[in-house]
Amino acid sequence: MRGFERELITNWRRLCLPTDNAAIVVAVSGGADSVSLLVAIDALKKQKKLDLRIVAAHYNHRLREEASDEDEAFVRGLCSDRKIELAVGHAAHRHNSNVEQAARNDRYTYLQETAVSVRAFAVATGHTMDDQAETFLLNLIRGSGVQGLAGMPPIRELGGDIQLIRPIMSWARRSATEGYCHEMGVDFRSDTMNVDEAFTRVRVRKILLPLLADFNPKIVERLAETARLLRQNLPPTAEIPPGPIALERLRSLSESELASGVRGWLIANRGDLRNIEAKHIDAVCRLVNSRKSGKTVELPGFGRVTKGGGKLAFSENNIEKTPSEN
Amino acid sequence: MRGFERELITNWRRLCLPTDNAAIVVAVSGGADSVSLLVAIDALKKQKKLDLRIVAAHYNHRLREEASDEDEAFVRGLCSDRKIELAVGHAAHRHNSNVEQAARNDRYTYLQETAVSVRAFAVATGHTMDDQAETFLLNLIRGSGVQGLAGMPPIRELGGDIQLIRPIMSWARRSATEGYCHEMGVDFRSDTMNVDEAFTRVRVRKILLPLLADFNPKIVERLAETARLLRQNLPPTAEIPPGPIALERLRSLSESELASGVRGWLIANRGDLRNIEAKHIDAVCRLVNSRKSGKTVELPGFGRVTKGGGKLAFSENNIEKTPSEN
Repeated sequence: MRGFERELITNWRRLCLPTDNAAIVVAVSGGADSVSLLVAIDALKKQKKLDLRIVAAHYNHRLREEASDEDEAFVRGLCSDRKIELAVGHAAHRHNSNVEQAARNDRYTYLQETAVSVRAFAVATGHTMDDQAETFLLNLIRGSGVQGLAGMPPIRELGGDIQLIRPIMSWARRSATEGYCHEMGVDFRSDTMNVDEAFTRVRVRKILLPLLADFNPKIVERLAETARLLRQNLPPTAEIPPGPIALERLRSLSESELASGVRGWLIANRGDLRNIEAKHIDAVCRLVNSRKSGKTVELPGFGRVTKGGGKLAFSENNIEKTPSEN
Repeated sequence: MRGFERELITNWRRLCLPTDNAAIVVAVSGGADSVSLLVAIDALKKQKKLDLRIVAAHYNHRLREEASDEDEAFVRGLCSDRKIELAVGHAAHRHNSNVEQAARNDRYTYLQETAVSVRAFAVATGHTMDDQAETFLLNLIRGSGVQGLAGMPPIRELGGDIQLIRPIMSWARRSATEGYCHEMGVDFRSDTMNVDEAFTRVRVRKILLPLLADFNPKIVERLAETARLLRQNLPPTAEIPPGPIALERLRSLSESELASGVRGWLIANRGDLRNIEAKHIDAVCRLVNSRKSGKTVELPGFGRVTKGGGKLAFSENNIEKTPSEN
């Protein structure tokens, strides 16, 4: 068994994920991260360490014309060569604004629906420790508060009883995914742009992280570990379901419960907290506590929160991106 | 009243610090940060907003030959011009290793003793929001865990019933301290190197922070705010007094209580957690929980923890600094 596969199965067991009698959807963009995950899960199946139905899923977001179609063709070839089931989804339409945000939401919706249709317990993504470190820094720069610094959890609810799992995030550097692909003689698309990757993330990767590595060569590991420690120390979240919520209920919460509850409620309604800073959460909390009605908080990037009729409601909108996200 | 003074008195009240019938020691290096603090406190006294005995304290650490003496002469001149009481201490000897650490400890000891001798309730330092942001980044780079990221508290126990207070840290940028000095026509020493300022800190200030400001011009404010939010979310600390401590007592603590207890105990014995990473705290926790006796954990920079006779003991040492601290 190769080192990458050993690490993967070790982490799989540590996360208490099923090893048989289950199906899993593996999100594959065509980049080394997701290709290495797919190939390693497939290798573990051939070694009888995992007895799972594996379904690769590729979402062609059609954001980059030819390159998007080449990504799709590459993933089709990879899965056909290795006899791995593949589901491919295509973006139905183009969005005028918030392209990345919308494409990302569409992709997750597609992945979730695919998982439901094949009765998979989870969608696995190839997020690496580098992605986690970049997410940490992006949220730190943005000032997104403790919740944002806690980074991406290794497992979270995707909706509809499907989990989103990141089985290589806690141990694999991006370079290790490339190394494993080389070892296995598997090609990957090096210019695959993940739809999540805004310009700021690329600058974090290409400029900020190398500078931080001058200070500490283990910076990626340190940042990922910091996110993990912060996740352990997160204040308890008051779980609030999506949809309009009675102000009375929110007003019964303590200050820190309200803040974390509002975060959870926004995630449930909006999909995530991208671009949301501590001050926006504060603004929603003030909306809850102030006695004037009919007020609105515009969220940066996407969505607004409106108070009225004794309730707080979330609605989508399409305001332009804020300069901070560029 | 000038803006800087208004901010200072507002923060003074917010921190519930005494405004009369008390003495305060103001640590003055000669730099704009500490000079602005001293001058503003003095101005508030003249405006009858504060009715305190003000004692400036300067510690000549003798690390930089002539420049150190020039700093001292400058502070003497400033206090004499303004008729402010001044206490000056001099380093008695040079240290072979850990110069900064030792000089820093000596300086705090001197400040504390001065405060005791004039019956001051506190020593005030001129740490700014920039210092807090730099401390946050240094601890982030070092991987010092949640406690380190919580940064410097605005008030902490210095020992002997004396508080260490940082009344401008939560609102003043370094540039604002220089601006106030200019407004007041007060000179300051621009090349005053605080003994705390290791090479890494200077690189954080001159290279890393400007790059981060390209991402977010408000980065210093965001980092200081992040530290404040993390401070609010710190896990409860089991308070353990300095000196040898029974293993039995430590073993009765929960895992997170033990970790925070060990941190607190190390601070009590060592003065601070400089250079200490999460892995060192973990190593001490393992020492507590393992059943083998006579083991030692060497701490980076300064100090060691030894187990023996059913107790955990801290002792000073003089090992060389670790490469991570340059």
